[in-house]
Amino acid sequence: MNTDEKYMQMAIDLAVDNVKNGGGPFGAVIVKDGEVIATGVNRVTANNDPTAHAEVSAIRAACSKLKTFELDGATLYTSCEPCPMCLGAIYWAHISHVFCGGTKQDAEDINFGDAFIYRELGKPYDQRQLRLQFIMHSQALEPFREWTLKDDKIEY
Amino acid sequence: MNTDEKYMQMAIDLAVDNVKNGGGPFGAVIVKDGEVIATGVNRVTANNDPTAHAEVSAIRAACSKLKTFELDGATLYTSCEPCPMCLGAIYWAHISHVFCGGTKQDAEDINFGDAFIYRELGKPYDQRQLRLQFIMHSQALEPFREWTLKDDKIEY
Repeated sequence: MNTDEKYMQMAIDLAVDNVKNGGGPFGAVIVKDGEVIATGVNRVTANNDPTAHAEVSAIRAACSKLKTFELDGATLYTSCEPCPMCLGAIYWAHISHVFCGGTKQDAEDINFGDAFIYRELGKPYDQRQLRLQFIMHSQALEPFREWTLKDDKIEY
Repeated sequence: MNTDEKYMQMAIDLAVDNVKNGGGPFGAVIVKDGEVIATGVNRVTANNDPTAHAEVSAIRAACSKLKTFELDGATLYTSCEPCPMCLGAIYWAHISHVFCGGTKQDAEDINFGDAFIYRELGKPYDQRQLRLQFIMHSQALEPFREWTLKDDKIEY
C-alpha cells in the first residue's frame, strides 16, 4: 500500500465507522507536508447541518487548526467523489489535489443526490427544480461598490 | 417595496455592513412562514473558514435554530447569486425558492471566483485546474455496503 492508498484507506475507515456512529457513509482526510491536518465525516443528520459533509467538515477543521482560509499545497482524500457543494469548498480552499474512492454515480445508487445536483447545475435556470429569480440588481451592486472602494480589504 | 424586496434589501444591507466589519460583500436571509429564521454574511477571511459564505452560514444557522437538517418551504434571499458550493448547500437543505440580487458575473468583476468555479464544474475531469484522481474503487464501496445494510439509517 503506497502513501496515497494509506490515506484513502483512512478516509474509507472513517466512513465505515461513521455509519456505525449514526452518520452518513463518507469520510475525508486532509494531508499537508506529509502530515494529517484534519479529518471529516458526514454528520448532516446527526448535527442538523446539511453542510456537514465529510469534505466540508475536514476543510473547516483544517483551516481552524492552521488558522488560515487557504490550504494551498494540501491534498484531500475522500471516500467518495465530492458533491458540487464540497467541490466548490475545495476550490475556495485552494486545495490543488484530490483523491476519490467512489463516484457520484455510486452515491446516487444508494440514494444520495450528488449526481442529481451536478445535473441541476448544468441546466439553464428555468429548467432546474429549484426556483431561482433575480431582483433588485442595481441595489445589489451597492456592497460590491463598498468592497471596491475599501482600501484594507483581504482578497481571496 | 413588496415583501420579497424587503427581505432582499435586508440581505443587501447585511452585505454592506459586513464589508464595514471586515467581511466579504455578501449577505443572505432565510424566511419561512413569513418569519426571518436566520441571516448570514461572508466571514471567510474573518473566521478562517472558506465555507463561511453568506448562504452556507444562513443555512447552518437556520437548521441549528429549527433543529432540522431540511428547510422545506423556506425561501432564501441572497445579495448575489450563490456559488456552486452555496447552491449545492441550498439543494441539500431542500430550499425550494431563491431570490438573488447580483450575478456570478458581477462577483467575477470584483475578483471573486464564483463564475470560474461554475466553469470548472462544467469541464471533464482532465481539463480542470484541480487535479482529481480515482483510486481504490472497490474498497471505497465498503461504507456504502454498511449503509445499505443498516436498518435504522436516517436518509435525506
